[in-house]
Amino acid sequence: MKLINLSELSGDKQKDFLNSFDTVLTDCDGVLWLENELISGADQVMNSLKSLGKKIFYVTNNSTKTREQLIVKLKHLGFNAEPNEIIGTAYLAAQYLKKHLDPKKKAYIVGSSGIADELNLAGIENFGVGPDVMIPGRDLKTDHEKLNLDPHVGAVVVGFDSHISFPKLMKAACYLTNPNTLFVATNTDESFPMGPHVTVPGTGSMVAAVKTGAQREPVVIGKPSKLIGSYLIEKYNLNPERTLMIGDRGNTDIRLGYNNGFQTLLVLTGDTTMEKAIAWSKSEDEEYKSRVADYYLSSLGDMLPFLSS
Amino acid sequence: MKLINLSELSGDKQKDFLNSFDTVLTDCDGVLWLENELISGADQVMNSLKSLGKKIFYVTNNSTKTREQLIVKLKHLGFNAEPNEIIGTAYLAAQYLKKHLDPKKKAYIVGSSGIADELNLAGIENFGVGPDVMIPGRDLKTDHEKLNLDPHVGAVVVGFDSHISFPKLMKAACYLTNPNTLFVATNTDESFPMGPHVTVPGTGSMVAAVKTGAQREPVVIGKPSKLIGSYLIEKYNLNPERTLMIGDRGNTDIRLGYNNGFQTLLVLTGDTTMEKAIAWSKSEDEEYKSRVADYYLSSLGDMLPFLSS
Repeated sequence: MKLINLSELSGDKQKDFLNSFDTVLTDCDGVLWLENELISGADQVMNSLKSLGKKIFYVTNNSTKTREQLIVKLKHLGFNAEPNEIIGTAYLAAQYLKKHLDPKKKAYIVGSSGIADELNLAGIENFGVGPDVMIPGRDLKTDHEKLNLDPHVGAVVVGFDSHISFPKLMKAACYLTNPNTLFVATNTDESFPMGPHVTVPGTGSMVAAVKTGAQREPVVIGKPSKLIGSYLIEKYNLNPERTLMIGDRGNTDIRLGYNNGFQTLLVLTGDTTMEKAIAWSKSEDEEYKSRVADYYLSSLGDMLPFLSS
Repeated sequence: MKLINLSELSGDKQKDFLNSFDTVLTDCDGVLWLENELISGADQVMNSLKSLGKKIFYVTNNSTKTREQLIVKLKHLGFNAEPNEIIGTAYLAAQYLKKHLDPKKKAYIVGSSGIADELNLAGIENFGVGPDVMIPGRDLKTDHEKLNLDPHVGAVVVGFDSHISFPKLMKAACYLTNPNTLFVATNTDESFPMGPHVTVPGTGSMVAAVKTGAQREPVVIGKPSKLIGSYLIEKYNLNPERTLMIGDRGNTDIRLGYNNGFQTLLVLTGDTTMEKAIAWSKSEDEEYKSRVADYYLSSLGDMLPFLSS
């Protein structure tokens, strides 16, 4: 039995639900806020869960912000959050490289300063952030010496990069011709729908460009990669069955939960609509089935009544 | 029986082969030339085939050049070619839009002037070619009015674009939120390997970025899309069985031939190595099998001895 409406359960069943987990992992954009607007009641729900003794983790695929920047945003919007509760993909990418990259080697970043800052904190030399545009008239195809490739690059990291460009795609592809060069993508979220007629391409769009040009598959750090779940389970000794994953995206948040044996709760304030979730639940496709949450709520704030009762 | 070495056939069998086709479709880069260098003997082979009365078509996925520009290159390198023998993806994309796009609508191009020129020749209003870079500090995510979207766009065309950028990806994604907006990709060649440690991302890299961000699949004009084969068969009344497709890429050239029932000849002067072709021939995967040519030659020039005998 999946897609249970938590709001429609009896008070006893709601209490059973609350007692069924010790740890809460929650996505941020689309669950706690939309851009810079708090989703009503989300702050009170997270703060109540924490005061009930639940271990809380804010788990975001957003690679443009460091943990420090995320904590500022969380606090500003009223969440009683601490730095060690933040699990961002820029931070996790840095942890991954710390473990796997030869310390004499550098990372080339197709991404934003969020990644560079976390790599710097982890002591990993890096470069690439910011504009690197094609000069009209330049022909890198025939004049690739102009790329000035750095022979000490041992990893290519791809995250959200609003300065994506052909020189960047070509540098990444050239570095990745060396099979020993690590290839890390923070996440693969395809896009952010922003209402009618507006779509913002996501990190997945940039990762698709790099991996197609390089003809290599990256290690994906973010949701729904099992990596992020294993990291949390190991580092914090989580019991998967007593862990709840809250999210607004079937293909990242809920699938992360499914892949790691967590309980899952879908909220309808972001990407995934009820229609989509129902269609997935009727599909025979295993990947679609893995996107179907155990529970759902219209909005995280709807948990407030039975938290305070 | 596939992957027959034409050079090792007896003289009689070589004549049978030559008599088995009336039409020759040939790829350009990797078969006739490498960048600006003629592949030795390729000009004489194509000119001999033409003087034997074969109908010739130069079929290229390259969208950066118009037919006019391709004819200049072909003639310069010694090919006895005429404009109506050139089948390029920029030209075909223009033909496709002429047939399917509302004449009151415009095309937004993520690509080069080759596409714009062919669209202009076909009388299709278009824009987008050239730099359109992200200004540091700008945040299109929250300030998307700055995109200045044109309400008269009815098609997005994606080809090779060395000025690919986030504003372009976002504009394409926004135009494509309208399900009536046509979505055309000239081709999906992933990359051009340029020797050790150098890879040039191809149109496929740019198409991957746009389609992932837009979450829509394009109509692909170029090889191996069946579209290009059907166009030639219909327009020139070709007999597929008596048509030979020559190419250096299993996944585009040879597969185009396979998809349309043409005979196929792989030359080893470009992308696909003999090792790859043999591996594909042993695979059970239907897509890999479709990349295996009927015949092969080390180089197109090797056809010269039995053409002149």
